[in-house]
Amino acid sequence: MAKFFCFVVFKQLQGLKIANNKIYNDLKFIEHTLVMEKYTIGVDLGGTNTVFGIVSSSGEVIAEASIKTQAYPDVKDFVCAGTECLQKLICQVGGIDRIKSMGIGAPNANYYTGCIEQAPNLPWHGVVPLAQMFSDALGIPVRMTNDANAAAIGEMTYGAARGMRDFIVITLGTGVGSGIVVNGSLLYGHDGFAGELGHVIMDRSDNARLCGCGRKGCLEAYCSATGVARTARQILEETDEPSLLRQKEISKIESLDVSIAAARGDALALRIFDFTGDMLGRACADFTAFSSPEAFIFFGGLTRAGELIMKPIRDSYERNVMPIYRGKAKFMISELMDRNAAVLGASAIV
Amino acid sequence: MAKFFCFVVFKQLQGLKIANNKIYNDLKFIEHTLVMEKYTIGVDLGGTNTVFGIVSSSGEVIAEASIKTQAYPDVKDFVCAGTECLQKLICQVGGIDRIKSMGIGAPNANYYTGCIEQAPNLPWHGVVPLAQMFSDALGIPVRMTNDANAAAIGEMTYGAARGMRDFIVITLGTGVGSGIVVNGSLLYGHDGFAGELGHVIMDRSDNARLCGCGRKGCLEAYCSATGVARTARQILEETDEPSLLRQKEISKIESLDVSIAAARGDALALRIFDFTGDMLGRACADFTAFSSPEAFIFFGGLTRAGELIMKPIRDSYERNVMPIYRGKAKFMISELMDRNAAVLGASAIV
Repeated sequence: MAKFFCFVVFKQLQGLKIANNKIYNDLKFIEHTLVMEKYTIGVDLGGTNTVFGIVSSSGEVIAEASIKTQAYPDVKDFVCAGTECLQKLICQVGGIDRIKSMGIGAPNANYYTGCIEQAPNLPWHGVVPLAQMFSDALGIPVRMTNDANAAAIGEMTYGAARGMRDFIVITLGTGVGSGIVVNGSLLYGHDGFAGELGHVIMDRSDNARLCGCGRKGCLEAYCSATGVARTARQILEETDEPSLLRQKEISKIESLDVSIAAARGDALALRIFDFTGDMLGRACADFTAFSSPEAFIFFGGLTRAGELIMKPIRDSYERNVMPIYRGKAKFMISELMDRNAAVLGASAIV
Repeated sequence: MAKFFCFVVFKQLQGLKIANNKIYNDLKFIEHTLVMEKYTIGVDLGGTNTVFGIVSSSGEVIAEASIKTQAYPDVKDFVCAGTECLQKLICQVGGIDRIKSMGIGAPNANYYTGCIEQAPNLPWHGVVPLAQMFSDALGIPVRMTNDANAAAIGEMTYGAARGMRDFIVITLGTGVGSGIVVNGSLLYGHDGFAGELGHVIMDRSDNARLCGCGRKGCLEAYCSATGVARTARQILEETDEPSLLRQKEISKIESLDVSIAAARGDALALRIFDFTGDMLGRACADFTAFSSPEAFIFFGGLTRAGELIMKPIRDSYERNVMPIYRGKAKFMISELMDRNAAVLGASAIV
């Protein structure tokens, strides 16, 4: 009854398109609180930020906060800061009794062991039993998977991959991650570490770029946000070509600057996108020889450039893929980027 | 009763280790005939030979014959010749009523449609509905899959991959094929064409080798039996280095010559194996970033060189794979090469 009453009020307010977001959000809380719904926590642990979200059973992120991942060189301090940050959110939704479990999406996370192992983009080295550490701190069950796997689960449950059984999510962030779904299930491999497509070798020449994993020529070294910034800096240093990018100190250029310049029609920035898209298209052509997915779904800041990056990817793919695969695969942008796919996905792995 | 009688006679003769193979084989037929067992047909359709086998329910190839694939430029003639060849085998085992069904393993075969599509190493172009053609000719159900997928099913059922849930079979024959098993099931992809690992690009430079698929730099162009022969011819033409291989006309050198020379300690032949193994190891390092298999199982004539080829593969893999995967994967040689894994596997897909 309480649920029904709350639902009616909620829908009426929604119908009135109330502009005051605070009232709207407060009402969402009241709705969830009155019906004593159980929530899950979804955590998107990235190389730069870690986002904590409380997720309702209908897939809404009803409370959210974040901390800076790199600010905690000791993982114990990270767990303390994360727990503190979470306690506030948990209080907002009615206390720990309202929380069922927690899922973490993190780079190099092992679904089977609950450990992060040798993650090149995180401040902690070796094997970190993060799931157990958070479970001890909060007193709830915690599971962990690759951040990109979490995004893939999110995309399959709420996003662009609904109804698909074979697809690959490629995340273009600080690194390049991937979540591979085959036959409707996430591919974990025999040790839980399948789907590190950012670390296939795209350049086998002697002057290939060094990657954070310690090897040379990885896809990630070129096509992550960091990789795109490296490409920009390299071209700006090696040529005199005029570009909007020269308005900024070269060492401070980021991938966002390239996106902004490309959107303004800057020839050099567009060429950086062509180079990046060409390599992503070639990589996807190889991935298709592996699992022949129905779609590639791209996720991350770079995809906000839309067709400026998606067209070079698609064109390169069709040029480079084996004839039997031509014209079959879809190239899509995540439908969940503004809905926090990684948090939603992480909450769904539990 | 008939079964029991026959079993006793059969076992007794086995026990006596009868040297006369003909009597032994005739007795096997009598055993199978008396108990009216139903058989399946397994077909290994390769770029050079097509092997037809009648397979018992216990996984024995009880009758076998082959035809030359390239001798039939028109696929209708191939089906006629194949049917004629099969009729003899079928008569031997008691007629078509004793046959349940037929499975074909063929390059570029689509499990979902039963067609061979644009196979670069076969004489027929375009889309060939081979499963339907054989089904019409024989009046039994026919299914078809990638030849390497069939080998993988064979390996999982009877060979080196028994008990494994994540492994990759790599066939080194006229081409390089692959059968990928994840989570205990063959990976078919959304269109039935997953697992064409011979066609990932290993050399992206301008002077990469042309592959039969029309693109450049494919693994197959270097690591198939044909690729190994090309490497040999190239080195022999470009250098004056002495080698046992020079005893033969360069244009006629085959991979078997390289194996024989390597086994005799020929330095150039050993270098060809090092080059081939190095590339296979690098390719496997990339495949691990995809599906993180427990084992890579190699199949085909090249593997008869044993450690001469397996050691360079393993060493290169460990040098090139991402640190989190090091020391985990097994590198094995098929256990079914002399038992006709492809025929057994093809018979098992039905």
